[in-house]
Amino acid sequence: MAQKPSIPKGTRDFSPAEMMRRGYIFDTIKSVFRLYGYAPLETPSMENLSTLLGKYGDEGDKLLFKILNSGDYAAGLTDQELHSASKICEKGLRYDLTVPFARYVVQHQNEIAFPFKRYQIQPVWRADRPQKGRYREFYQCDVDVIGSRSLLNEVELVSIVERVFRALRINVTLKMNNRKILYGIAETTGHADKMIDITVAIDKLEKVGIDNVKAELEERGISRSAVEMLQPILELSGTNSEKLDKLEAIIGGSQTGMQGIEEMRTVFSYIEQAGIALKTELDLSLARGLNYYTGAIFEVKADDFAIGSICGGGRYDDLTGIFGMPGVSGVGISFGADRIYDVMAGLELFPEEADFSTKVLFANLGAEEERCSLTLLATLRDSGIAAEIYPDAGKMKKQMEYANRRGIPYVVIIGSDELAKKAATLKDMRSGEQKVVPFTELAGAID
Amino acid sequence: MAQKPSIPKGTRDFSPAEMMRRGYIFDTIKSVFRLYGYAPLETPSMENLSTLLGKYGDEGDKLLFKILNSGDYAAGLTDQELHSASKICEKGLRYDLTVPFARYVVQHQNEIAFPFKRYQIQPVWRADRPQKGRYREFYQCDVDVIGSRSLLNEVELVSIVERVFRALRINVTLKMNNRKILYGIAETTGHADKMIDITVAIDKLEKVGIDNVKAELEERGISRSAVEMLQPILELSGTNSEKLDKLEAIIGGSQTGMQGIEEMRTVFSYIEQAGIALKTELDLSLARGLNYYTGAIFEVKADDFAIGSICGGGRYDDLTGIFGMPGVSGVGISFGADRIYDVMAGLELFPEEADFSTKVLFANLGAEEERCSLTLLATLRDSGIAAEIYPDAGKMKKQMEYANRRGIPYVVIIGSDELAKKAATLKDMRSGEQKVVPFTELAGAID
Repeated sequence: MAQKPSIPKGTRDFSPAEMMRRGYIFDTIKSVFRLYGYAPLETPSMENLSTLLGKYGDEGDKLLFKILNSGDYAAGLTDQELHSASKICEKGLRYDLTVPFARYVVQHQNEIAFPFKRYQIQPVWRADRPQKGRYREFYQCDVDVIGSRSLLNEVELVSIVERVFRALRINVTLKMNNRKILYGIAETTGHADKMIDITVAIDKLEKVGIDNVKAELEERGISRSAVEMLQPILELSGTNSEKLDKLEAIIGGSQTGMQGIEEMRTVFSYIEQAGIALKTELDLSLARGLNYYTGAIFEVKADDFAIGSICGGGRYDDLTGIFGMPGVSGVGISFGADRIYDVMAGLELFPEEADFSTKVLFANLGAEEERCSLTLLATLRDSGIAAEIYPDAGKMKKQMEYANRRGIPYVVIIGSDELAKKAATLKDMRSGEQKVVPFTELAGAID
Repeated sequence: MAQKPSIPKGTRDFSPAEMMRRGYIFDTIKSVFRLYGYAPLETPSMENLSTLLGKYGDEGDKLLFKILNSGDYAAGLTDQELHSASKICEKGLRYDLTVPFARYVVQHQNEIAFPFKRYQIQPVWRADRPQKGRYREFYQCDVDVIGSRSLLNEVELVSIVERVFRALRINVTLKMNNRKILYGIAETTGHADKMIDITVAIDKLEKVGIDNVKAELEERGISRSAVEMLQPILELSGTNSEKLDKLEAIIGGSQTGMQGIEEMRTVFSYIEQAGIALKTELDLSLARGLNYYTGAIFEVKADDFAIGSICGGGRYDDLTGIFGMPGVSGVGISFGADRIYDVMAGLELFPEEADFSTKVLFANLGAEEERCSLTLLATLRDSGIAAEIYPDAGKMKKQMEYANRRGIPYVVIIGSDELAKKAATLKDMRSGEQKVVPFTELAGAID
């Protein structure tokens, strides 16, 4: 094979440098999840197509990666049947972590102690057209609690968001909305059936301005009087509590709308009680996953870096119903690892520990020196210091270059002089300084 | 969907309890890899079929999971062509970590500082017939160094093996062999072309006994005089150094064989010099991956648990040649996570920390108590204590049951009495003991 090998479009290799930074993000997130009692879960990469199909809409079905049946996939099929992917494929790669999670909960319901709190960090696959920032394989990082309607769960997730981004040193704002409020607005205007049209139009407020939103609302069949009624909602301002009061004055007649308002009041009061300092903002234009969420909706934006939302989620009331287990409510959020990576790289927020490398390289000057180095290497590693020896005796320049390319901060040089004195030359690669350190004190000389 | 959902044959869900134990194994292994300067790498789950096909033999090609082209996979194909998997699939799931690693090295050769030390822990997929202990999706955990012929690399891997299994508290024996010695044996008998036949027969020594091995050798076309010559090799005993001396007396005339003997002598002497206490045993019946390895061969067996090898590997001289980059030598080993898990479960070696759960559950007695708990929860979490609140006020029995099922060791009870006294009732779920602890001292009362 003369041609240089490549990888499929939309997929990525993660180099050691990238892996260490990604590992820093995932480890930070995981340790916060555990602090709140969430436990890890993994499901298979492949699910039966019957589990996946029909769960993501027609568009989603098309984006599933299907796996050809193994063995003689075409056995016994007519040519006609061969044209149907459903005949030659029974399995597909998971499209998200939510549907497999629902499948897991239903399948294992008798073993699970509800409320069930789990996190899951695994890749998902989508046969989307690859483009900048959109991949065909990418990690999702989900945290959900299922089997409880308590709003304490929403507050717990808000607290997790605060703690994760504080640990990662990213300044963020959490935007919240509630599907029940959106329904209440639609109901109040007399267009309960047009909740999605109204929300889609309002969603563009920031981008296109109030006049264009009003025009779009009319185009979408909302009556002029209803649009006028919406005007104060579009112009809502003030603190979260002021916004909720104004909202009540307009949509308080809708029972569902009122429920949504009360839910948000409870959540905001809990947030205060829990001492959560995260900026939280009621944003009625937030419409994320509307077909899916039934209560609170969350979205997190980085304050200092222009990129889409880096985290989001909400409450769903019937995740497991599709698998025959109705009435189980849950709430969850998902952290966008790729975007968080981009924000941290852009703002140079990765700490030094995320650029982990070997701490000490033993230069290799020959056989006798190697033997001495092997003993010292074991001592350093026993002290928890990552250390290695350049495996081949050869030009010192090449060995130093290797240390530099790898970002190794210390080089230990042991030649015949050092062997005689039982002391190593320790070179600090950052400052270029050298000092002589007795073999017995070497571990202590590495910071 | 009324039917209970299921997952594809040969795949697994990993429950929180399993995940935490698996995580303990992977974290231990990773931290050792890093101590030796190995850095993480990840490659995509899908590779182009041109990368995968022809690398694992005909049998391996059949076991590849192929991914149906997305979009209209059948577009423009004749019925005839539809019968050919190669026409409707361009991508496959990775079958191991070695070929993608070789592909990565060739593709990124200009960015890599050689010798390149990497570890990779990712799932692989094989369309094998599922059976006990054999899965269609399983993790591999590989560590390799590529771009150096130095035997110091072999010693480093031996040292890694020692440190990993010491950390996991598994008693093991490392068996070693060398492909060059095996060639030397075949050459000495006058059957250089029958190295694989000879090795396959010798491989069965422990199972079937010396007479059956000799019979099989003759069946495989080895002359009687050659079989007689092999007799002392089959009966080889003593220390590694004694074995090598006896071997030299027999096959010392073979240049390749002598090279293998010298290599093993060097490795064993380095092992001693590095203070490695791991039991290491020259085992000429070790034939692992013979078509592939060119020098040292490793295999690790658990001493106290009957199961196949739990770790193995060797040196290969031309991993990247298949992708047009010849002459790059490397050596690596792979840890078998599933088997290591089975050994640790069987011998009850998992430490308590691998059964991580929430440390403290706050019982939920109502709205006012919830508010107080929220403040205390934040304090505990600030101290690094994993804590949660039962989200719904309800029967205490149900809440206690939840704590028990989750294995949560402490329950904090705050009712009206406790609110008045600003002191919580702290219940130790293991002993059943209760004590009253002032709110301000709660974090300190959790061990």
